[in-house]
Amino acid sequence: MAVVFHRLLDIDEALRKLDEALGGIRTLGSERVILDEAVGRVLAQTVEAKVDSPPFDRSEVDGFAVESKSVYGAEEDKPVRLKVVGQSKVGALPQVAINAGEAIEIATGAPLPRGSNAVVMAEYTKEEHEGGAVLVYRSVVPGENVAQAGSDVMVGDVALRQGSLLSYREIAVLAALGYDEVAVRSRPRIAVLSTGDELALPGDPLTPGQIYDVNGVAISQMIREMGASPQYLGIVSDDYGDLKKAIGEALKAHDMVLTSGSTSAGLGDVIYRIFDELGKPGVVVHGLRIKPGKPTIAAVVDGKLAVGLPGFPVSAMIAFSVFVRPILMKMMGLKAIPQGWSQQARMAYGIQAGRGKREYIPVSLTSSPEGMVAYPLLKGSGATSTLALADGFVEVDERRESLEEGELMGVKLFSPKVPLAELTIIGSHCPGVDLALELLGEIEAKVINVGSTGGWLAVKRGEADIAGTHLLDGGSLEYNTPFLGKYDLRGRAVLIRGYARRHGFLVSKGNPKGIRTFKDFTRKDVIIINRNSGSGTRTFIDYQLREIGINPEEGGIRGYDHEAKTHSAVAAAIAQGRADVGVSVEAYAGIHDLDFLPLGDEIYDFLIPVKRLEKRAVREFIETIASREFAEILGKRLRGYRVLPETGKLIAE
Amino acid sequence: MAVVFHRLLDIDEALRKLDEALGGIRTLGSERVILDEAVGRVLAQTVEAKVDSPPFDRSEVDGFAVESKSVYGAEEDKPVRLKVVGQSKVGALPQVAINAGEAIEIATGAPLPRGSNAVVMAEYTKEEHEGGAVLVYRSVVPGENVAQAGSDVMVGDVALRQGSLLSYREIAVLAALGYDEVAVRSRPRIAVLSTGDELALPGDPLTPGQIYDVNGVAISQMIREMGASPQYLGIVSDDYGDLKKAIGEALKAHDMVLTSGSTSAGLGDVIYRIFDELGKPGVVVHGLRIKPGKPTIAAVVDGKLAVGLPGFPVSAMIAFSVFVRPILMKMMGLKAIPQGWSQQARMAYGIQAGRGKREYIPVSLTSSPEGMVAYPLLKGSGATSTLALADGFVEVDERRESLEEGELMGVKLFSPKVPLAELTIIGSHCPGVDLALELLGEIEAKVINVGSTGGWLAVKRGEADIAGTHLLDGGSLEYNTPFLGKYDLRGRAVLIRGYARRHGFLVSKGNPKGIRTFKDFTRKDVIIINRNSGSGTRTFIDYQLREIGINPEEGGIRGYDHEAKTHSAVAAAIAQGRADVGVSVEAYAGIHDLDFLPLGDEIYDFLIPVKRLEKRAVREFIETIASREFAEILGKRLRGYRVLPETGKLIAE
Repeated sequence: MAVVFHRLLDIDEALRKLDEALGGIRTLGSERVILDEAVGRVLAQTVEAKVDSPPFDRSEVDGFAVESKSVYGAEEDKPVRLKVVGQSKVGALPQVAINAGEAIEIATGAPLPRGSNAVVMAEYTKEEHEGGAVLVYRSVVPGENVAQAGSDVMVGDVALRQGSLLSYREIAVLAALGYDEVAVRSRPRIAVLSTGDELALPGDPLTPGQIYDVNGVAISQMIREMGASPQYLGIVSDDYGDLKKAIGEALKAHDMVLTSGSTSAGLGDVIYRIFDELGKPGVVVHGLRIKPGKPTIAAVVDGKLAVGLPGFPVSAMIAFSVFVRPILMKMMGLKAIPQGWSQQARMAYGIQAGRGKREYIPVSLTSSPEGMVAYPLLKGSGATSTLALADGFVEVDERRESLEEGELMGVKLFSPKVPLAELTIIGSHCPGVDLALELLGEIEAKVINVGSTGGWLAVKRGEADIAGTHLLDGGSLEYNTPFLGKYDLRGRAVLIRGYARRHGFLVSKGNPKGIRTFKDFTRKDVIIINRNSGSGTRTFIDYQLREIGINPEEGGIRGYDHEAKTHSAVAAAIAQGRADVGVSVEAYAGIHDLDFLPLGDEIYDFLIPVKRLEKRAVREFIETIASREFAEILGKRLRGYRVLPETGKLIAE
Repeated sequence: MAVVFHRLLDIDEALRKLDEALGGIRTLGSERVILDEAVGRVLAQTVEAKVDSPPFDRSEVDGFAVESKSVYGAEEDKPVRLKVVGQSKVGALPQVAINAGEAIEIATGAPLPRGSNAVVMAEYTKEEHEGGAVLVYRSVVPGENVAQAGSDVMVGDVALRQGSLLSYREIAVLAALGYDEVAVRSRPRIAVLSTGDELALPGDPLTPGQIYDVNGVAISQMIREMGASPQYLGIVSDDYGDLKKAIGEALKAHDMVLTSGSTSAGLGDVIYRIFDELGKPGVVVHGLRIKPGKPTIAAVVDGKLAVGLPGFPVSAMIAFSVFVRPILMKMMGLKAIPQGWSQQARMAYGIQAGRGKREYIPVSLTSSPEGMVAYPLLKGSGATSTLALADGFVEVDERRESLEEGELMGVKLFSPKVPLAELTIIGSHCPGVDLALELLGEIEAKVINVGSTGGWLAVKRGEADIAGTHLLDGGSLEYNTPFLGKYDLRGRAVLIRGYARRHGFLVSKGNPKGIRTFKDFTRKDVIIINRNSGSGTRTFIDYQLREIGINPEEGGIRGYDHEAKTHSAVAAAIAQGRADVGVSVEAYAGIHDLDFLPLGDEIYDFLIPVKRLEKRAVREFIETIASREFAEILGKRLRGYRVLPETGKLIAE
């Protein structure tokens, strides 16, 4: 049933094999475009200067053109008098020359007259209108305030080389050299197809088991951002006949076909077979020795290229970046990826990576006083949140076993346009934080949900500006404050009081299993949905079970191993009938139309490193939490939420 | 005659005054666009998840869904047999549940059946078709190979906040959440006008004293790159009536008018007066305490904004970046400038900067093994080469006196799309280098022409991969090799033999002044054009003069103080009648239709740091210089050039 990836290729091998099978990846032809349409295109010609720049010795200021020797020794209290013999205005060559003791009035941008070699700025001169003379109060050195002809760009100089991606910087250079149009590479035409019976088009309703197609729009935009021309052909089902027809037709009308999905060695995979059957020599690359992106396949089909990308968006985007982009670059004659697409950053913490595969770790970048920090996102490449948080990825060589904490890495950005966060919030997720950010307004914030414990560690490592936390200390029954000592953060971080949120059991409407207490968790007819270790809610659940004499780790609780990472997953599991009960906040009962059995209020606070308290964005966040507006809106928007007397105040340090 | 800038404002003061005069810079309205057209726009809504992502517990691999306890202890030689009770395909919820000892075949992306909490990958299983069973050769932990419902994004989660610039990364998130359209800010409509009698449109011929308009296209593209909508209205002369009419009409039809040129306090400035007369309250900002960019003016004209930028392109681009962009960001509700627009880099060397003005130093970025290095470009903001080489600029606070060598600076890129150089060549300019790069092909090179001496210093500081040099040692009469010792680079850098190029006197056609030898330089009827100190040619000129008993610094040579920085400036000065004779290479005689009197051949070599010899781009450059193709083409393309027996070989180390 399954296609087996017998021999995985590394990227360079795979590109070489494709190149061989094609008889060389051909660079496309060129076309001429006007400057205004040339941004984002690849230059197809070498641009030589046809005129000097500046084309004449040009004054860079308003003042008087002189021979520098004439004003030697001139000072504030010892001016030199020069005879004014004419004027040089912009736009025309002066008709007069000057000799020693003479000057010509000159405007910024005007040509220097013959005999002059410097310009005295107007503010160091005083005109004597009657005598047609000027007093000069300052000496100048030869060349002062003058842009010499050709000093900038000279005739025949290569100003731009073919193969450059044209930003407006290059367009400005072309304009300065007098070009009004330029030869650029034709755009490769790339067909984009998404495959999979589970896919729905964004905007359509989801039926059970379906997910939205992300790759269609994402891959199309990645292609466009490179200056090529994508055509999204929509979702094609996994049906062999439909798919073969769609891919066959796409190959005829385009330079390359990119599919995503249906490439892994499993149930219902057809892309491999279709690529192989549509033309010669067929599939050349049967899988890549990279992670993610292993199930990438590539074929040469009668001279055209067909690439099958993995279905998970982050996998598809990484495989596109490392494998398809170099092919497109060759087709477009593009020499180098622009600078803005990479950043240097230090790893926030060490991780295991590499070990025989070239591994690409999506990272979220956060700025710290010591420069950029890359926070590895390990949620898996199927995750939308990885998409939302990943600014790019780091490449780990197959010979590496791990990346070290603090290691300086080159981060390849998914796009040079990803926004830079001013405020980084790492910790327990809470919709109250989102509400505060909404009120806060003009701050670009990055919110990374790793649970309360993860938040404490992030503050300790200096990565987070703020960590949301609701950790219960079993001994004191206090929330959060006892952990300042436990994490050795006294004097280094403070706790700002947040708010209370009601939590309890979520059960199906009408509570069909009649669940009342934690004791019911041990019933044979009850399946629970648990939370992940490290989360505040998990700490609470385990504490409550032990209080009534149940050791949760001994087994006997059905579903205890089923760890949801979020409140919503708990609610969704119950709504979908996969579990009977879970612990969550009341706000989610309404969203999923579930019943809620309150257990009490818990306290959600904000842990902040002392050093970040003076950061503008942090200060404004605290002010927002403390504001009357937040107090008014919190309970209205989020059921079971309320502010406390100390909300927004420092409660421990 | 002149507008005097009595009180310069810093950027923040200027923005505040504009804001006050306007009664607040208003954020424009919004419009709905489909996803495919949303890239580059600013999000005008907060995007909340309406569905969980994934919407169900989803398998991340092909294999068998199990309860993890059922396969506890399974190993390669100790498989566990499970009963296969059904299948879960993508796109639909499975109708069966599993109990202990059971499994369900599952595809990547398919929903987990009730009762399962993990998936065993297909490669660790073997199906027994007859018994309807599967052998499992590996245990799994709960949650293994499963993306739990909502683990990724949960219903009600804020996925994107308003005010973000949408890259395809955000578009992908919107697609994943099922959005097919989104609210974005309306694009501000900005009129762009270039003013100045000296300006010609790119594509038109230049008349004497004219230069091409760069700002029209450059500023328009900067506006477009931010997601606003520019309209370039062309060049308007400095004539008061024309300009007032053009600006007045532009203000009616746009949200803002940007002019460039004619703003400095000098001859023929009219912008200030026009802004003040067109409406109330008129000019609010009379100049900025920044360098470059001081003559920037800004006015509020009956509720519309008018900004006059300086005329020099680099000044205009910097003033746009630091002053106009924040205004546009407010109009667009854009919170933060994308990440790709800034880079960290270390200063290549110390410079004086700041001292009472906020100074912006254009820099060229070059990569080194220790990270990015920023090379300050000090040629002046009127220079096209500054445009061509500047990747961005560093900001120097007014309280600073200097920047230190090695200081880590944030570099604001002009565009995130500027290409990153693989090869950095710094030193004496030579068209032979451009020829080699043309043959070399797919290497993005940055060539910085600072003269031979500058090249040696750049190698010493580790900035250059290669430095072109033609320095003559007066003692040994040898080119280049003696300087390895003088610059203390023995063992740290090598010299690769380049080629010979013929140099001599350039004179007007027919040699009207009858110039023959360096003796003629002292004639009263002869004006020379000299070269800059530090250049190989200047070293040669001074050596030759001294050889015949002339101390060049004692004066007596007309034009000796007139230092051209390039061969072409020498040729242009003679062609334009500003000088009678200069020393240059023969190749430029042809370009400018001048006569050439040969003085001999000089040798142009390549200095390369030992550590860079193994760099791919450097190796390929040397191979190109040594190639038969280069030897054949050099003399044909460049008159007076020829390869040498050792060309491309190591000649000193």
